[in-house]
Amino acid sequence: MRIITSITQLRKVLNQVRRKGKTIGFVPTMGYFHEGHLSLMRQAKRDTDLCVVSIYVNPAQFGPQEDFKKYPRDLKRDSSMARKENVDILFVPSDNVIYSEGYLTYIDVEKISQWLCGRFRPGHFKGVATIVAKLLNIVWPDVLYLGQKDAQQVAVLKAMVRDLNFPLKVKVVATKREADGLAMSSRNKYLLSDHRRQAPVLYRALQQARRMVKSGEHSSAKIKAMIQSMIKHQSSGKIQYVACVHTDTLQELKTLEGKILIALAVFFGKTRLIDNVVIRLHARKQHKS
Amino acid sequence: MRIITSITQLRKVLNQVRRKGKTIGFVPTMGYFHEGHLSLMRQAKRDTDLCVVSIYVNPAQFGPQEDFKKYPRDLKRDSSMARKENVDILFVPSDNVIYSEGYLTYIDVEKISQWLCGRFRPGHFKGVATIVAKLLNIVWPDVLYLGQKDAQQVAVLKAMVRDLNFPLKVKVVATKREADGLAMSSRNKYLLSDHRRQAPVLYRALQQARRMVKSGEHSSAKIKAMIQSMIKHQSSGKIQYVACVHTDTLQELKTLEGKILIALAVFFGKTRLIDNVVIRLHARKQHKS
Repeated sequence: MRIITSITQLRKVLNQVRRKGKTIGFVPTMGYFHEGHLSLMRQAKRDTDLCVVSIYVNPAQFGPQEDFKKYPRDLKRDSSMARKENVDILFVPSDNVIYSEGYLTYIDVEKISQWLCGRFRPGHFKGVATIVAKLLNIVWPDVLYLGQKDAQQVAVLKAMVRDLNFPLKVKVVATKREADGLAMSSRNKYLLSDHRRQAPVLYRALQQARRMVKSGEHSSAKIKAMIQSMIKHQSSGKIQYVACVHTDTLQELKTLEGKILIALAVFFGKTRLIDNVVIRLHARKQHKS
Repeated sequence: MRIITSITQLRKVLNQVRRKGKTIGFVPTMGYFHEGHLSLMRQAKRDTDLCVVSIYVNPAQFGPQEDFKKYPRDLKRDSSMARKENVDILFVPSDNVIYSEGYLTYIDVEKISQWLCGRFRPGHFKGVATIVAKLLNIVWPDVLYLGQKDAQQVAVLKAMVRDLNFPLKVKVVATKREADGLAMSSRNKYLLSDHRRQAPVLYRALQQARRMVKSGEHSSAKIKAMIQSMIKHQSSGKIQYVACVHTDTLQELKTLEGKILIALAVFFGKTRLIDNVVIRLHARKQHKS
């Protein structure tokens, strides 16, 4: 595994790879790896000839009150984990390489960046879209790998890739979970032990929602009420939102049908956790065939 | 010359070209060619192996009160002119190819998009940056050719290319002028004959400004006053703005030094004309060496 910090150097190496007709899989991350990141790397290794992983804690996607400064960073640990996954290139750009003096350009994926998490984290998805566009122009991958845990990020980046004609495929990999169901996240390390014990209620509530939807409950209001009630009764978590939306457009659904995303954000103490479940319901047939 | 309308088809052809190690020069246009466009094509032909010219009248860069509908279009004339310049590929995407249903993504180059023309054409440079980013992702050129007449467009697109790490060079080609000095523009055809006779005052005023600056007048206020006075006395043009700014940052200069852009926008009847001159003044030496 090569660790590369310079854009010029990375491009030189990747141009050689591309000239040989090899395909490139790309996993953008903020580091502090867990099984979720590793599963993206494994998928990239399976699908493509060369796996590039980037680590960059992107200041543009943190709000002024958020945890940019204390976001966990451990390059030694990360590079040893990536090496075990046979990652080919670890790209670790420094800050002044990414946002040089006089930086001015931002990408806005309208509407879908404003809803769900976007309501509470203004500017977050603008920061995400911008850094990913930059990294795509640097790496020029054939396939971009994203984790399903960040469902809104998936929707925003898929829309950006489609709208700006980035010539690549986006592949979404299932959320990795702890044994008790808690979605893996670099932020789980912030949780106090009490909160850590309570946090799996999020997954239990989402699983319960899936079962209800599958057995015929298609009222968004009822599903949301059930989730909220479970979280309130079984934990001290403070709900920021629970939403039932279309997976791609993120438009609110009143009646659940088609590609459904049930997503939530809940605070345990100061730690904000997100999780979601995707359900596909086939529309009722209009005619007999 | 091939005329291509489909993105998939264009990519297929250009991938073959790239695989042979050939370089691609790209000239994005809104069509209705004049000598200015042709000089960009000639430069691309000189510098690179394959010249791609796009024609697309981009709705996203026109304001609601602007001339999108009546903007001149003549593909037959344009393709015959491009053929004479030995353009290799003319890319003429249709509207639904470029902005598909549910389009959401826009690129904003902050600050420098808001000044000069941007003050009077809100959203214009967002539309320009967005369409050019899309075209760059479709064409993947080695060199992007832009005309100096649109000086703010040059500054905005150079900033975007730098900030978003597009792996290409930007080459700016000098403004082409009519015999009497009027900068060539597809919009000149709108001019009534009386206004057409008066319009060269813009160039005369800019030339006079250049002479004054070169002979030691470094007060932006005095230069602007001279330009405004010339235009008012020698024409019926209505001035929208006259500005002295830094060529790249577009920041207002009070004292003229370094890379100076003197730019103006003037209405003749309903037709808005822009023009500019770039002057380089070496900063006065601080010490004797």
